[in-house]
Amino acid sequence: MPLNRILSIATVAFSLTVITAAQTKPRARDLGVPFDGTTGQYNAITDVKGVEVGNTTLISGEGKLVIGKGPVRTGVTAIHSRGKASNDAVFAAWFTLNGNGEMTGTTWVNDSGFLNGPIMITNTHSVGVVRDAVIAWKVKHGTPDMEGYWWSLPVVAETWDGWLNDINGFHVKPEDAWHALDTARSGPVEEGNVGGGTGMICNEFKGGIGTSSRVLDAKEGGYTVGVLVQCNYGRRDQLRIAGVPVGKEIPEHPAYGSDTGSIIVIVATDAPLIPTQLKRVARKVSLGLGRDGSYSGDGSGDIFLAFSTANPGADGSHGLHHLTMLPNDSLDPIFLATVQATEEAVINAMVAAETMKGIDDHVVIALPHDRLREVLKKYNRLAK
Amino acid sequence: MPLNRILSIATVAFSLTVITAAQTKPRARDLGVPFDGTTGQYNAITDVKGVEVGNTTLISGEGKLVIGKGPVRTGVTAIHSRGKASNDAVFAAWFTLNGNGEMTGTTWVNDSGFLNGPIMITNTHSVGVVRDAVIAWKVKHGTPDMEGYWWSLPVVAETWDGWLNDINGFHVKPEDAWHALDTARSGPVEEGNVGGGTGMICNEFKGGIGTSSRVLDAKEGGYTVGVLVQCNYGRRDQLRIAGVPVGKEIPEHPAYGSDTGSIIVIVATDAPLIPTQLKRVARKVSLGLGRDGSYSGDGSGDIFLAFSTANPGADGSHGLHHLTMLPNDSLDPIFLATVQATEEAVINAMVAAETMKGIDDHVVIALPHDRLREVLKKYNRLAK
Amino acid sequence: MPLNRILSIATVAFSLTVITAAQTKPRARDLGVPFDGTTGQYNAITDVKGVEVGNTTLISGEGKLVIGKGPVRTGVTAIHSRGKASNDAVFAAWFTLNGNGEMTGTTWVNDSGFLNGPIMITNTHSVGVVRDAVIAWKVKHGTPDMEGYWWSLPVVAETWDGWLNDINGFHVKPEDAWHALDTARSGPVEEGNVGGGTGMICNEFKGGIGTSSRVLDAKEGGYTVGVLVQCNYGRRDQLRIAGVPVGKEIPEHPAYGSDTGSIIVIVATDAPLIPTQLKRVARKVSLGLGRDGSYSGDGSGDIFLAFSTANPGADGSHGLHHLTMLPNDSLDPIFLATVQATEEAVINAMVAAETMKGIDDHVVIALPHDRLREVLKKYNRLAK
Amino acid sequence: MPLNRILSIATVAFSLTVITAAQTKPRARDLGVPFDGTTGQYNAITDVKGVEVGNTTLISGEGKLVIGKGPVRTGVTAIHSRGKASNDAVFAAWFTLNGNGEMTGTTWVNDSGFLNGPIMITNTHSVGVVRDAVIAWKVKHGTPDMEGYWWSLPVVAETWDGWLNDINGFHVKPEDAWHALDTARSGPVEEGNVGGGTGMICNEFKGGIGTSSRVLDAKEGGYTVGVLVQCNYGRRDQLRIAGVPVGKEIPEHPAYGSDTGSIIVIVATDAPLIPTQLKRVARKVSLGLGRDGSYSGDGSGDIFLAFSTANPGADGSHGLHHLTMLPNDSLDPIFLATVQATEEAVINAMVAAETMKGIDDHVVIALPHDRLREVLKKYNRLAK
Repeated sequence: MPLNRILSIATVAFSLTVITAAQTKPRARDLGVPFDGTTGQYNAITDVKGVEVGNTTLISGEGKLVIGKGPVRTGVTAIHSRGKASNDAVFAAWFTLNGNGEMTGTTWVNDSGFLNGPIMITNTHSVGVVRDAVIAWKVKHGTPDMEGYWWSLPVVAETWDGWLNDINGFHVKPEDAWHALDTARSGPVEEGNVGGGTGMICNEFKGGIGTSSRVLDAKEGGYTVGVLVQCNYGRRDQLRIAGVPVGKEIPEHPAYGSDTGSIIVIVATDAPLIPTQLKRVARKVSLGLGRDGSYSGDGSGDIFLAFSTANPGADGSHGLHHLTMLPNDSLDPIFLATVQATEEAVINAMVAAETMKGIDDHVVIALPHDRLREVLKKYNRLAK
Repeated sequence: MPLNRILSIATVAFSLTVITAAQTKPRARDLGVPFDGTTGQYNAITDVKGVEVGNTTLISGEGKLVIGKGPVRTGVTAIHSRGKASNDAVFAAWFTLNGNGEMTGTTWVNDSGFLNGPIMITNTHSVGVVRDAVIAWKVKHGTPDMEGYWWSLPVVAETWDGWLNDINGFHVKPEDAWHALDTARSGPVEEGNVGGGTGMICNEFKGGIGTSSRVLDAKEGGYTVGVLVQCNYGRRDQLRIAGVPVGKEIPEHPAYGSDTGSIIVIVATDAPLIPTQLKRVARKVSLGLGRDGSYSGDGSGDIFLAFSTANPGADGSHGLHHLTMLPNDSLDPIFLATVQATEEAVINAMVAAETMKGIDDHVVIALPHDRLREVLKKYNRLAK
Repeated sequence: MPLNRILSIATVAFSLTVITAAQTKPRARDLGVPFDGTTGQYNAITDVKGVEVGNTTLISGEGKLVIGKGPVRTGVTAIHSRGKASNDAVFAAWFTLNGNGEMTGTTWVNDSGFLNGPIMITNTHSVGVVRDAVIAWKVKHGTPDMEGYWWSLPVVAETWDGWLNDINGFHVKPEDAWHALDTARSGPVEEGNVGGGTGMICNEFKGGIGTSSRVLDAKEGGYTVGVLVQCNYGRRDQLRIAGVPVGKEIPEHPAYGSDTGSIIVIVATDAPLIPTQLKRVARKVSLGLGRDGSYSGDGSGDIFLAFSTANPGADGSHGLHHLTMLPNDSLDPIFLATVQATEEAVINAMVAAETMKGIDDHVVIALPHDRLREVLKKYNRLAK
Repeated sequence: MPLNRILSIATVAFSLTVITAAQTKPRARDLGVPFDGTTGQYNAITDVKGVEVGNTTLISGEGKLVIGKGPVRTGVTAIHSRGKASNDAVFAAWFTLNGNGEMTGTTWVNDSGFLNGPIMITNTHSVGVVRDAVIAWKVKHGTPDMEGYWWSLPVVAETWDGWLNDINGFHVKPEDAWHALDTARSGPVEEGNVGGGTGMICNEFKGGIGTSSRVLDAKEGGYTVGVLVQCNYGRRDQLRIAGVPVGKEIPEHPAYGSDTGSIIVIVATDAPLIPTQLKRVARKVSLGLGRDGSYSGDGSGDIFLAFSTANPGADGSHGLHHLTMLPNDSLDPIFLATVQATEEAVINAMVAAETMKGIDDHVVIALPHDRLREVLKKYNRLAK
């Protein structure tokens, strides 16, 4: 077993500890950031029933970069739309706000209207290994259609972690993807320096994985909308939190001089939306990022995917399918929930992420919680 | 009443005569052109239950062009998806093979997944008058939603008839649009020099309106696919009919030296397709044009719209909608029917159209039926 | 001459007076709203050299709606990209954030990469008359290519003013479009209740036309980005101004209960961008709307078009064209300027618009300037 | 060294022999198939100066499928747009006719307008390994921008070879991708059972790699258009060759009962096209497939990419770029050449491919050359 595998398992163990810790770590609302709307139980994408999230976190080594040796600050995040045991697809659609990124499998998502299999998020140079690993995982699990007609085009997205991570060392291995797939679960979701988000930078603070959710009023259908982001974009001076110019107020220790990052956003809902409607939901993610101050720079891969867990069995092969669809003119609460949950998930990612030192002793600081509260107070926006 | 209105009504009367005549005019199959697949009763878009087609044909004047005076060789074609009395929308989608053209209303077709109201086809410089006339027609008929939330974005397409018609004279009037809307009917469809197709040129022969349909086998669902084209594209030397290089074999009297034309293609089906699937159907129209030899030149507005009459009531505003959807992997016969009916509708347009003299004594010859049969025979492709 | 024409000319005269007044009316910055970035001379789309804006404002009648009689609260706005005398096209691209709207001509803009002719903005039910009027205007002016190969697909956009205006009365006439085209000029731009924006509602305050611009630093190329909006979207409780929740703080007199509006956004720049790049610019408009709190409801037609006045002559027909192109990785300042100018143009529209009474005595209040200042002060964001 | 590597190198050696042989193998024109237009020197994509093609062909084992053991019938094809030593990008665009397939990297191709790095084509389950291998190859070669800002999103496409190949055995390795990259060359291009095309099936005959080119007249600019296909689509009874219903005339030994295949089409040109124009070129590929009888079934991944080798250095980072652009209204000959070369490349693939036996003794027969000539003669279309 190669050294980096041992390290990987060590760090996975470490990250499992973090999971528990995560539940006690403050989130943005705990710090008094005011957000609109009603969240679900976990304020997470997993508030949409069936959705499971798993992470493999690879952290090892310190000091000077030696390609292939490390330091390693990366990982894989896996999202199952209907639980890891399901072979059933979900209606889905995607949208690109700025295309300097990758999300494989989207050509068929777009044309079929379905997402079949998990969504994976990792670093830019590990998309390939994770993609083929998803196929191997399907083969291993003896999926019904062994020819792979439906599941051979996995969805794998990425953002770039090469400022902290030995990205050219290709440290993610197939078993790291499998681990994220196999350990994914419902309930609370780890945030910050975990999974694919391990080495990410957001608005020149430490970024990573963040999540949030909204539950609609009963008269709007009572649906849940959950968002998960792998957040690696943005310029400090543009950062707004709840409309407050936090980035300008906390200018110190910028990580980068320019917006070369990216953000992957996954939107889940149990509202019965058809792909045409999900495409619109995916597009509305942009407005949540707008609220946080993004201007989506040239180097950014801002790619969003939305899926609906309603209409199980819609991808079957035989006979006619009977679907349920929300009317278009009932979509507004879904759109608003998407915007709000996106706005909050990005801030949650920064609040959860911790200061990290990576290759060549590059350091990215965490968003300082106390300073955040001070700034919110200065602008009369501290909620508690 | 201005002179051209009188003429218009005269020519409408004339065109009504043509309707009857049309039923006895030979169509491509009657001339022995071999096509695959089983047609519906009328081999027309109206084989899809509910679909109605109406035309206003404006032919008046001769000789030298005087802008505003004529000669006039133009018109309007109207298609109702569920019959003129219905206020119910249909699922729809559109596609552009080459964009030098106009189809209004498509932004909302694309985003909503619905077509609400009729489809109109006219000449390039009359899109506006026809568009607003559709709104006025809706207002006049006291549609339920008087604010026009749903029907204020009419679908109006065009091709350019300025080689035969005084296009800068703006001879189409609101009442011409209303007449086409009001007289639309099911059953046989006029082809050739009628409606929006009056002044059109196709592969340097006289073009215009053409239609065809396919009925699927019972085991494929027994669905009907109907196509209507307003055909104004193409270069003679590229024309293939049933794979035979007819254009090269009949090179005489070309109308144009280059492909500056366009084609509008409308696909109707009663198969229960959702908009994602209809988008794919619209895209497959290209393959039918490919079979006929099109290369879709820079000056061409090749714009296609597909709709499904299944799922009535899906556009209502209240509660959840219950839909029926054909599985994706049952789409192949629909795709093939679309390709075949498109291939045939174009040829039907040319077969039906008659030699026309227009402005400045420009003449466009009809595809000579006897020559067509000779060429098919030469290449061992004459069906009867 | 029909009565409404007389009224129209009267109101045009009135609106010309307003132009002068407009120069003394306060704009958002004058009220102390803090915005980032450096504006051009007029803080208007006309800061991009060559761009001209003209309005025809139709205001007449009072009291109960009688379709066809009024009251009339509507108009037309015209934008020339290179001045009204030019027949030269500009590189352009467009994007739809939410498609419940119309912008004609976009199929060819998208495919050709060029905008040829003016951009017109009016009410939803007058798109057709304005569209054909642009063609007639071109014919009247004896444009070089009389066949209209390039200019027969005019760009006309709309938002819906039927809550204040007799929209089903079709009060906009061809001469109203011509007047806007003929009187367009560079320099200061009228804002608020003018042109196409006359009867518009924005965040449940009176909306209309708004504009803003940014000038890049010399080291970023010194380019100008100008934005013009016809603003008719949004729900009061979502409105943010400079990040401050102004809508929640000023809840009184909402015009509507739901987001049924729309926004048209035109972005002009002199930066040498090719269409691929302009498409990205158009998409970034969404982020500016996000900053203002939009969630782009189902009923919204949020359609954006961006053009570049660089590369004159690129649309000519003969020989090779020699272009200049900004590298992709120099686009960030353009993107940021687009976001900022959009954010500000929307607020400028609301600041300039005045309380209006329309059909059936419907009243939409203006954003109260003093209240706005109080709210900004409460949140420590008053700039002066 | 694992066994399959040894076999791989053996078969590579074998395939190198085939290269020479290929020059003597008949191509479609040699068999008397009539095609329009003037080809380049090699009637290949490599007629576009700078373009290089390389293949790694993996053929080993016989008999019953044992996943991971074989039989192996697969490979990798690599295309360099400016030669393997260049780090310079090309303008590019892509299009999907039917999306049941993968082409990674296209999000950034679409948004940037550039293709940076090679194009790779392989089997469906090896896209990932090939993708990451391209990044590793760039790292190994010490590309100037070691952060990978530009080259970290490789373009890798696929079609499915699981009817002949042990596709779930993941037999393609990084070194197979490197070999194709390193051995790519200009001049004659191998066709048929080579590279990514090794195990492919086309119209139920043996398919694979095919290529063709067209050279425009001097008065049209004298540009070259080259096409390369990896051809794996189609139903026998739809196959037309030069318009002749060859598929119906040779019904024996069908490989499949339905269209589950795919086709990847790469179009290269030295004409100075900007990305907007290349997008249109990519779309026109559909018309070539239409001529061959495709109806692009649900299971098909019909994905096309077009690039232009003109405008070297356009992707640089500093200063303004000076480009050359062909006017839109000079595009027709490029469109026609694209359609013609696509039509021919598909037939060339089938003509070159040889009967293959793969897993579980599945056999796919080659298109019988003598029968093809007989059928062409029957329909009076035999050219020589």
